[in-house]
Amino acid sequence: MLPKKTHHWLLVNRIVRFGETDPAGVIHFHNLLRWSHEAWEESLEEYGLKVNDIFPNGSQASGNVEVALPIIHCKADFRSPIKTGDHLEIILVPEKIDISSFQVQSKFQCAGENVALAFIRHLAINVQTRQRCALPEKINLWLEASSVNLEPRPL
Amino acid sequence: MLPKKTHHWLLVNRIVRFGETDPAGVIHFHNLLRWSHEAWEESLEEYGLKVNDIFPNGSQASGNVEVALPIIHCKADFRSPIKTGDHLEIILVPEKIDISSFQVQSKFQCAGENVALAFIRHLAINVQTRQRCALPEKINLWLEASSVNLEPRPL
Amino acid sequence: MLPKKTHHWLLVNRIVRFGETDPAGVIHFHNLLRWSHEAWEESLEEYGLKVNDIFPNGSQASGNVEVALPIIHCKADFRSPIKTGDHLEIILVPEKIDISSFQVQSKFQCAGENVALAFIRHLAINVQTRQRCALPEKINLWLEASSVNLEPRPL
Amino acid sequence: MLPKKTHHWLLVNRIVRFGETDPAGVIHFHNLLRWSHEAWEESLEEYGLKVNDIFPNGSQASGNVEVALPIIHCKADFRSPIKTGDHLEIILVPEKIDISSFQVQSKFQCAGENVALAFIRHLAINVQTRQRCALPEKINLWLEASSVNLEPRPL
Repeated sequence: MLPKKTHHWLLVNRIVRFGETDPAGVIHFHNLLRWSHEAWEESLEEYGLKVNDIFPNGSQASGNVEVALPIIHCKADFRSPIKTGDHLEIILVPEKIDISSFQVQSKFQCAGENVALAFIRHLAINVQTRQRCALPEKINLWLEASSVNLEPRPL
Repeated sequence: MLPKKTHHWLLVNRIVRFGETDPAGVIHFHNLLRWSHEAWEESLEEYGLKVNDIFPNGSQASGNVEVALPIIHCKADFRSPIKTGDHLEIILVPEKIDISSFQVQSKFQCAGENVALAFIRHLAINVQTRQRCALPEKINLWLEASSVNLEPRPL
Repeated sequence: MLPKKTHHWLLVNRIVRFGETDPAGVIHFHNLLRWSHEAWEESLEEYGLKVNDIFPNGSQASGNVEVALPIIHCKADFRSPIKTGDHLEIILVPEKIDISSFQVQSKFQCAGENVALAFIRHLAINVQTRQRCALPEKINLWLEASSVNLEPRPL
Repeated sequence: MLPKKTHHWLLVNRIVRFGETDPAGVIHFHNLLRWSHEAWEESLEEYGLKVNDIFPNGSQASGNVEVALPIIHCKADFRSPIKTGDHLEIILVPEKIDISSFQVQSKFQCAGENVALAFIRHLAINVQTRQRCALPEKINLWLEASSVNLEPRPL
């Protein structure tokens, strides 16, 4: 049976850099969660969204978003050593949980092997009140498009 | 009833710095796990160990350790916003799992409130073979000393 | 001759952590500049300022500062290897340049030896217009207090 | 007159990510130097070198390099705000200084504007003795190839 294909915007490539590893010669662990977040940002862009429509821009004069998406939970599993120069393929699996939260799983592969797994859960809050609110419409679009299965091509 | 006291080497203080927060004005999430690891390092030193007896020193000529302690799992929960200048108290709760692994829970408090929780699990491996091995004796000493309950002082 | 004494708020201690070093077994270089910034933040607090009166707090509802202090230039010199567990003493030497800018030199010592030097220059800008403006009064207070020489105590 | 062309391995693209910016809404400064180092690593790979032939791999059993390339000086100038989502083009300008050292300048452009400049100087040392030594042959190849001017194409 053919494996199910994945949307192109859910596949992200990354090469491990020297400063991301520690004297044991492998990734210093928390960078994996940084990569997951950055892969998610790249996915939003590849899907067609503008990051300035999603992320707060700090103490700037104008154009700020009304909804922030803080992380309420994250976790990671490390299966094989990840080293400087490794070419990683990151497969994102987003899932909407309810009207105000979603999660993104990141599967890290190197040379076809599963080397690590990360998981980040976001909650939508109003930037001013910091109260829970509905997910931004653009995040919902990305979540819905990502959850539509791609059929494997016929032989 | 008095609360159980904690060994002094399991309490670590930390002040949140500007560059550790993002444009939403709160900690950029994965730093919490970095802080947990650094609090663990500080705990080992406060207990009386030398970091050079525990951590690999990279491509140095001499004196390297034989056992590395890579992280196989980590997770974090975020309950309240953590901001620049917050004075955090970190309470470490170590636990030996088996002959070759242990975990450390980090409870983050700010002004008496529980603001976040992190959790890191380590596995002992031989640096040369990368095979699972027994925990270093010094880590065992720290784990045992940390697990001895301190009785509350009588009134 | 006695060395000139330094104000207590211009002396900051820091221990090098494992994840701040790379597989060569020494500090991954740019962390030195991060430490300089964090030492500066610590100095402001030790002098008596509140970080929330100095640093922007992002997309928060209220209480934001009107002046930001972006960095326009930085540099660092590395003289001796800085390794995991090294106990560093950081000596800050601030200097006002003109009405809207100042610089802070950080001298890093380990066991009495000069191991590195960093240098950061800040410009004051209005958060809304991003135009150059006068330094905040509180930064001026810190700069002035820091530049008052302490006389060595007579023998 | 046509501008001089640049070798493809000296051009690196990078998109600014959310966690690389701080509550002022711009890049937290020292990340620029991290990007310069990572751009240099990418350049070596694009030229055709293997990172494992250049960078120490820590406390691994085998295959370590004999020469390390620690940084002895770095600096950066910041001209325009760099924000989340900015698409940066990094132009590397390497230069051999003497038999045992070289430097790499990184020009950061965004939408055709010069937004920042970074500069990193490396020294070759023997990993075991930590004494100054000749640059690795592969680094010399990259330096020489990079310094060969590309002629502008005739009209």
